[in-house]
Amino acid sequence: MESMWHYENFEPTGSAIGWRVTRKLDEVQTPFQKIEIFETTDWGNLMLIDGAVMLTTRDNFLYHEMMSHPALFTHADPKRVVIIGGGDCGTLREVLKHPGVEKAVQCDIDEQVTRMAEKWFPELCDSNGDPRAELLFDDGVAYMANCEPGSVDVVIVDSTDPVGPAEGLFNKAFYESCFLALKDDGVLVQQSESPLALLELIRSMRTEMGKAGFTTFKTLPFPQPCYPTGWWSCTLARKGGGFDFREQAAREAALDTKYYSGDVHRGALATPPFVQQALNAS
Amino acid sequence: MESMWHYENFEPTGSAIGWRVTRKLDEVQTPFQKIEIFETTDWGNLMLIDGAVMLTTRDNFLYHEMMSHPALFTHADPKRVVIIGGGDCGTLREVLKHPGVEKAVQCDIDEQVTRMAEKWFPELCDSNGDPRAELLFDDGVAYMANCEPGSVDVVIVDSTDPVGPAEGLFNKAFYESCFLALKDDGVLVQQSESPLALLELIRSMRTEMGKAGFTTFKTLPFPQPCYPTGWWSCTLARKGGGFDFREQAAREAALDTKYYSGDVHRGALATPPFVQQALNAS
Repeated sequence: MESMWHYENFEPTGSAIGWRVTRKLDEVQTPFQKIEIFETTDWGNLMLIDGAVMLTTRDNFLYHEMMSHPALFTHADPKRVVIIGGGDCGTLREVLKHPGVEKAVQCDIDEQVTRMAEKWFPELCDSNGDPRAELLFDDGVAYMANCEPGSVDVVIVDSTDPVGPAEGLFNKAFYESCFLALKDDGVLVQQSESPLALLELIRSMRTEMGKAGFTTFKTLPFPQPCYPTGWWSCTLARKGGGFDFREQAAREAALDTKYYSGDVHRGALATPPFVQQALNAS
Repeated sequence: MESMWHYENFEPTGSAIGWRVTRKLDEVQTPFQKIEIFETTDWGNLMLIDGAVMLTTRDNFLYHEMMSHPALFTHADPKRVVIIGGGDCGTLREVLKHPGVEKAVQCDIDEQVTRMAEKWFPELCDSNGDPRAELLFDDGVAYMANCEPGSVDVVIVDSTDPVGPAEGLFNKAFYESCFLALKDDGVLVQQSESPLALLELIRSMRTEMGKAGFTTFKTLPFPQPCYPTGWWSCTLARKGGGFDFREQAAREAALDTKYYSGDVHRGALATPPFVQQALNAS
């Protein structure tokens, strides 16, 4: 079969990534964005939203595991979890691997992301029928604003970049809603882009989270080949308390994960010196 | 100034990376390979060898620090270090940050790599005048074969990919030379490509090292945006003994590093489950 190279240029980082693709499998223009699916030679299927790569079959486990397990093992006993964005359902699947979770709400603005995931990444949707899962297709900003105060243990913001539909998920107003919705020992975690190329964005996110009332922050780096620079991060925030985690529980849980483990979690807490310096934080 | 995108396609991984470049600064065809230098908009200068990116000004610290400090802090008291390849001198500079090192030999087959580094990456050559440094331009395979047995504490193989001039640095014969040259508590470390996309190569390297007599191995992953998939690794091998390291010393040394720290080293020892499984090793 013929193959060709598909490149994605990242203007803010001056870098690009690409894949060898064989054909376009699907495409839909939704009221919010354009979703495209390609078949690749080595990475399985590839989803683009407005031209930006969201995930591949082969490497999405890195992101989904690191967006969920560190936050859930940081919280002492997470029962109620809200995922804002996350329409591909990969984060939801990871969250539901925790038997203690009683309810996981996924609120993505665009139902078509989930429909495309069901079709082209069915393994990520394995747990969509779990009775603990609730899939909403609605505005995440409004959902968090209307959440019952003090009702949520963990909020996971699994969104696209801070432009377009996700822009409202990176400011003080949204973080205030999260702060209110969380219980006192609640954990907020958000994807926070490249720790090498986009440190300024991470700093700005932490500042906005701080204005909303969060007092402690931790940025965990992890590899993610399909995102700019191949190095990505999530940032955790708490109303109070630190980022020690249930390390023993993480080891004993023996969740079915490919990247995450208690040791990997501990390792991700080691903030490299240049990141410490840029964020003025350990 | 006009800018354009320069892409590098990696056939074995089916992925590509690229940079926004403004102009070509230099080019030389040596008896061994073609070296090109580009200026980028965001990554400083970029060196290509036979079209493959070797380093950028901005992100080479990740690779150079991880190719040197973990091995040197694993050895109890490294005094004599040999670097095979490493012509850009960035690894040499890191090695010489260790005050206990008495002698560091860098043996790269191509003098022009060092000349180009002096010109376009002068900061990497800061320590070339150190009286402990010896720069040789010779065949690394022959250098190791002729090394006095039991004379070296740490061998660092800082080479290009296992094709072209570096092909001879990835097989049993070369590793046997390293094994002989090392003292009994010696450490071998070699760049070992992408832990996600090229696990088969890592497995093969460890097998060849084993055939040469090495008994224990550890593959440490680290981020490296300018290499395929943005995720890279080095593999350590020992005649005997494990990979516990002088953690307290690493913390107290307070080397001038941007990525490496005792905590980051500890973190890199956490092998992700899927790598453990593929390598049948912890």
